[in-house]
Amino acid sequence: MKSQLRKDHLSGQWVIIASERSKRPDEFRSVRPDKMQATDPVFCPFCRGNEAKTPQEIFAVRDDGSAPDAPGWRVRVVPNKFPALTRGEMPRKMSRGIFEFMAGVGIHEVVIESPDHGLEMSDLPIRHLGEVLGAYRRRVQSIETEAQYKYIQLFKNKGREAGASLSHPHSQIVAMPIIPRRIKEEIYGADRFYDRSGECIFCRTIREEQAAEERLILANDHFAAFAPFASRFPFEMRIFPLRHEPSFSAVRDEELLSLAEILKVVLTKLKTVVSDPPYNLVLHQSPHPDQARKDWPRLARICHWYLEILPVLTHIAGFEWGTGYYINPVPPEGAAKFLRE
Amino acid sequence: MKSQLRKDHLSGQWVIIASERSKRPDEFRSVRPDKMQATDPVFCPFCRGNEAKTPQEIFAVRDDGSAPDAPGWRVRVVPNKFPALTRGEMPRKMSRGIFEFMAGVGIHEVVIESPDHGLEMSDLPIRHLGEVLGAYRRRVQSIETEAQYKYIQLFKNKGREAGASLSHPHSQIVAMPIIPRRIKEEIYGADRFYDRSGECIFCRTIREEQAAEERLILANDHFAAFAPFASRFPFEMRIFPLRHEPSFSAVRDEELLSLAEILKVVLTKLKTVVSDPPYNLVLHQSPHPDQARKDWPRLARICHWYLEILPVLTHIAGFEWGTGYYINPVPPEGAAKFLRE
Repeated sequence: MKSQLRKDHLSGQWVIIASERSKRPDEFRSVRPDKMQATDPVFCPFCRGNEAKTPQEIFAVRDDGSAPDAPGWRVRVVPNKFPALTRGEMPRKMSRGIFEFMAGVGIHEVVIESPDHGLEMSDLPIRHLGEVLGAYRRRVQSIETEAQYKYIQLFKNKGREAGASLSHPHSQIVAMPIIPRRIKEEIYGADRFYDRSGECIFCRTIREEQAAEERLILANDHFAAFAPFASRFPFEMRIFPLRHEPSFSAVRDEELLSLAEILKVVLTKLKTVVSDPPYNLVLHQSPHPDQARKDWPRLARICHWYLEILPVLTHIAGFEWGTGYYINPVPPEGAAKFLRE
Repeated sequence: MKSQLRKDHLSGQWVIIASERSKRPDEFRSVRPDKMQATDPVFCPFCRGNEAKTPQEIFAVRDDGSAPDAPGWRVRVVPNKFPALTRGEMPRKMSRGIFEFMAGVGIHEVVIESPDHGLEMSDLPIRHLGEVLGAYRRRVQSIETEAQYKYIQLFKNKGREAGASLSHPHSQIVAMPIIPRRIKEEIYGADRFYDRSGECIFCRTIREEQAAEERLILANDHFAAFAPFASRFPFEMRIFPLRHEPSFSAVRDEELLSLAEILKVVLTKLKTVVSDPPYNLVLHQSPHPDQARKDWPRLARICHWYLEILPVLTHIAGFEWGTGYYINPVPPEGAAKFLRE
């Protein structure tokens, strides 16, 4: 059975039931959160020399003259071998009784950030990190030409507690047939703000945070990083491009390098100041304009892409699941101070 | 500084900044998810004989003649020593620039389920478990008389990965000055369903799930437990009262015992069939009627309390944070089959 998208009829939330990844109940014993994953490079499908262990590459940054699916690459993009969503005809919503579902159609790719198992994103030279970000942009641009996908979600899970099933540094790109709920919430919020103020909520936030300074971590020519006012997690960070731009695919070359710089600094700070925690790196951006402009005619004015870094230092508990609210023991002003110093 | 409620102006989500619990960045080293917590009963504030280590008890189920804050209790309710919210005058929303916040006013109590450190909820005799549920009801009833609180969130975190900071079995009750977003979403969903069908969405779901059977785990005279159609997590379960009732505080004595029975069975199944995972137990119920009836005049007809059990077998990762959607590798039909057998 391929995966299935199912709607929770109460909350409106969609869930991907990805049974290709299914396990028997007792197999969960081996993936308990307290167990560490194997890191043997002989078996790692993402290591240099093991290219045959992945599906055929979609894109790579390579030395001149090196062949696809062979060594000689610095960044490599491959289809996910255990995809949450798979390519196919755009699905229709179906229902059985009160339950709604549809086929799990989409794209799921993996960006291998380096052939070296032990090089974390924060360890990469800025030029190499720029190539990783360039690979992100390249794949997002390419997937955007397939207009049936409504949203492209780019993310990175570092460490098992952050959801990484392989320890070799990599990121993931998922293209989806629906606009995610979280993104819709942000668009509604930004739209309401535009109604009141005639301004992009992100541009305004950047300006206020730069003036207030207390939550600012770092800024350079093109980006500003700060601890959000309503941080859900200790040492949560957001990196905003100073130039208003809805889609990551439109990021410019000089901005990519500037992003690599700021990303390397904040990830290094996380490693040194906050004891190298697992983390999630998450892109937020505009849905596909052709798919969303009819619902939000001023989409281009209210969306503004950004990156979110969520360290895993606390646990999501019953209070969070019940309420949807978070308890954060570290005020963002304190977190920013530590990260600035 | 007391805690503060802060609103994320983008998503509308509130966050509790609970800086009384604050740590320096390097102190997070000691609470890394892979570390186990100390379990020495000499130091455990919830163990028999250590009653002086907690704030004075609010309520207890005790042997006749035993004194408050002394041994002789079977279930004991105390204020949380490190509360996320504290009692005070109802706060007003304030703002500074684009940011909204208010004082972190509320109630935060702990229900110690047994004087024995090693007795998990699933190990308790049904009569004792009924007394724990009775203590829940008693406290919720009492807090409901303080009409300024809009929502009462009852939950249990079992195991460090589920957010428990002390391993001695306990539950928590938080009364809040705002209706949580998750509860609002459910009410909106239930309200829309009532518009279309003239029926409580929960009553209808119970009927459809009992007829379909494939996701049903267990039912008794007053309750039914099933794996939800759009389960976010492997082996997620919901326990519904068959009788339509918005508030947990109105649960009847015979229902409490029936709930203790079904809860003991499903928690024991989780322990034996699914390798004893950490889990969260979460109550969903109606907001305080006096506080919510003006927004939802038919609140009593559309709300229906239930319990949710969320085993911690997977990790929340970048995809989930970005989209608000979940990837679940175990179809609920398969989970229910394992749990039924």
